[in-house]
Amino acid sequence: MPSAGRTGVGTNQEDVRRHNLGTVLGHVHRAGRISRAELTARMGLNRSTIAGLVTELESLGLTEQVKPSGTRISAGRPSVDVRTRAGAYVLATDVRVDGLTVARVGIGGAVEARATGPIPSSHDPEAIGDSVVELMRLVVKDVKADAALVGIGVSVPGIIRAEDGLVRFAPNLGWHDVPFAQILADRITTPGRPVLGNDADLGALAEHLRGAGVGVDDLIYLSGEVGVGAGVIVGGRPLEGSGGYAGEIGHLPFTPDGKLCHCGSRGCWETEIGAPAIALAVGCPPDRVAALDEFLNGVSEASPDLRTVGRNLGRGLAAAVNLLNPRVIVLGGYLRALYPLVSEDVDAGLGAHALTAPRELVKVSVPGLGGDSVLLGAAELAFGALLRDPVACLATACHDVESVLAS
Amino acid sequence: MPSAGRTGVGTNQEDVRRHNLGTVLGHVHRAGRISRAELTARMGLNRSTIAGLVTELESLGLTEQVKPSGTRISAGRPSVDVRTRAGAYVLATDVRVDGLTVARVGIGGAVEARATGPIPSSHDPEAIGDSVVELMRLVVKDVKADAALVGIGVSVPGIIRAEDGLVRFAPNLGWHDVPFAQILADRITTPGRPVLGNDADLGALAEHLRGAGVGVDDLIYLSGEVGVGAGVIVGGRPLEGSGGYAGEIGHLPFTPDGKLCHCGSRGCWETEIGAPAIALAVGCPPDRVAALDEFLNGVSEASPDLRTVGRNLGRGLAAAVNLLNPRVIVLGGYLRALYPLVSEDVDAGLGAHALTAPRELVKVSVPGLGGDSVLLGAAELAFGALLRDPVACLATACHDVESVLAS
Repeated sequence: MPSAGRTGVGTNQEDVRRHNLGTVLGHVHRAGRISRAELTARMGLNRSTIAGLVTELESLGLTEQVKPSGTRISAGRPSVDVRTRAGAYVLATDVRVDGLTVARVGIGGAVEARATGPIPSSHDPEAIGDSVVELMRLVVKDVKADAALVGIGVSVPGIIRAEDGLVRFAPNLGWHDVPFAQILADRITTPGRPVLGNDADLGALAEHLRGAGVGVDDLIYLSGEVGVGAGVIVGGRPLEGSGGYAGEIGHLPFTPDGKLCHCGSRGCWETEIGAPAIALAVGCPPDRVAALDEFLNGVSEASPDLRTVGRNLGRGLAAAVNLLNPRVIVLGGYLRALYPLVSEDVDAGLGAHALTAPRELVKVSVPGLGGDSVLLGAAELAFGALLRDPVACLATACHDVESVLAS
Repeated sequence: MPSAGRTGVGTNQEDVRRHNLGTVLGHVHRAGRISRAELTARMGLNRSTIAGLVTELESLGLTEQVKPSGTRISAGRPSVDVRTRAGAYVLATDVRVDGLTVARVGIGGAVEARATGPIPSSHDPEAIGDSVVELMRLVVKDVKADAALVGIGVSVPGIIRAEDGLVRFAPNLGWHDVPFAQILADRITTPGRPVLGNDADLGALAEHLRGAGVGVDDLIYLSGEVGVGAGVIVGGRPLEGSGGYAGEIGHLPFTPDGKLCHCGSRGCWETEIGAPAIALAVGCPPDRVAALDEFLNGVSEASPDLRTVGRNLGRGLAAAVNLLNPRVIVLGGYLRALYPLVSEDVDAGLGAHALTAPRELVKVSVPGLGGDSVLLGAAELAFGALLRDPVACLATACHDVESVLAS
């Protein structure tokens, strides 16, 4: 296929070095611990260049070198392992209809502290901003003095304009064009503005990097919250669509002249597998629908109505399988609690409607990161600036977070 | 987002030069004629480098420099236009259920000669290979003595294994695992093996490069032949899926417990908008279904049944719009003839089921390349080797095509 206008090669040496520094850090960040020999192989650079980059990351307080843990004997000089050090962290926030979660996540991806709280019932963005900052104060209390806050990442169940973090539309919060990144920036005086992402997109990102989709270039993450959205990775890259609206899988036309959907249409897939439909099928009272996953965890056997939901889940997945040919489909949110109850019915619905060739390739899975996919995706989003250019990011990072979050 | 393991930068100068040479040629090939100033701007290289590359392409017989055609006055030295020369061509083949088309397509993308013929009714691959070669002989009769055959591209309505041109499955030809690239290679002794592609993927490619999707990074091309397939471009790149099976949009689950589909499932979208369904709705006799587009061209007004097909077409498109958020949907094959008859119904079906935000961004269109999208996509596929490395490709190109095609 013809090249699509790639520009000529000609790069500044310092830019290349910073790019490579960030790439090395990215490998260590995702692996947690990795040998220098493996870094050399993955980067396609020579040993001395890698050694120099690793030394620079060490001097920045981001990584450290340790003796390899195993006792394997191999030819030549033994390699050295590189692992992350607790010198940098991000604050990740998951804004859900049923609550708020904030975590402090260290370089390397481990959750160092976590706090959860209710979401203000008004769903007022300013009030939610206040609550998020209160939770942030809780998770930074015991942060090490020499650790730097390098980013803030936030998941919102809605459509986000990436460049400025405007929430274009979040139906289940009742938000239209809410400048939520700015609302947070007004409360947290870090140099870098908080970065926002869509919940399903972030779930897909985290599962791709650290969960059920590691090494998988074609993956769909379904976020079952109130409705159903999808984060899609194709050919190793996020599927965005021409306006950033891709992944609205809950609104697949599913049942002709079916139930009215909150989007205004009839018969969307979501009317058959959304939280209200499942609640009805399992007898979950209306006031507990927001915590449907907990209710489902208490169900021991699927009723015929719930099995119908499972079959409809599989039939809709077949649409995605035939169109996108993914390798893995991760069922997140309440679908994670639903799947074990109705996996046979999901498989039956999928088998009846997916073509054989893509059906044979796809694996339906619960998240590898449990209930943390979206939260950890928000953390990865926040680490983006550090991994693009560690030197520049650390130069403006925040070392006195408690004062920054002072009310 | 973290970088996905890009290796360190460090490239051979000669590789870079050849890459840039191919990229310049690609710009001229797609534009037909382009100023050197514009090439300089698009490539991000300096004027003297561009001048050197253009001179090399000229010495290879691929392009020539001419005075600009316009009378615009601009500051500084006037630029020079570069246009393609008839020094290289490909042979493009479109294998359809209703016939065969072969074209000689010159660098620059113009069809220089074309021949069509029936497809052997047995659909026997060897017999089809013979017919293709006979058509090729017709289109090369008046080829210029100094022109080089640089590639052979073939469209097949099926799933292709890219690396060796094995047709995994072409339901409407009854093919399973047919080595059609090898069958052609056995008959045409050019150095390069024929390159095969899926019809819808090639339609999408050509419409993206030269048709209704120029400058559009998110595009869907629907090939209405007997069934309906999709070629999808997302973020400027073809959507392939984990096994190359993506785009099977005809098998979207559409009508619960609907009509039996040839794939073995029930209620696929294709059972409502495929050629047999349309033929039934317009009273097209069974022996003319293969040329349904011609029949539709003779229909002046849509019957209520045909309008239902149009509405179902729109409802299915809504699934693609909500999931993929394309900028353009191109209706190819018989859908091109159908659309003008039922465009209001298509719009109504789409409007009732697509979300507002992606609906506002998408344009439904007939092909910019008329009935030639797939054929020209096969030509683009064939030009791939030349555009990747003009020097290496021309070194092995064929200058005596008539002997190569001798029986």
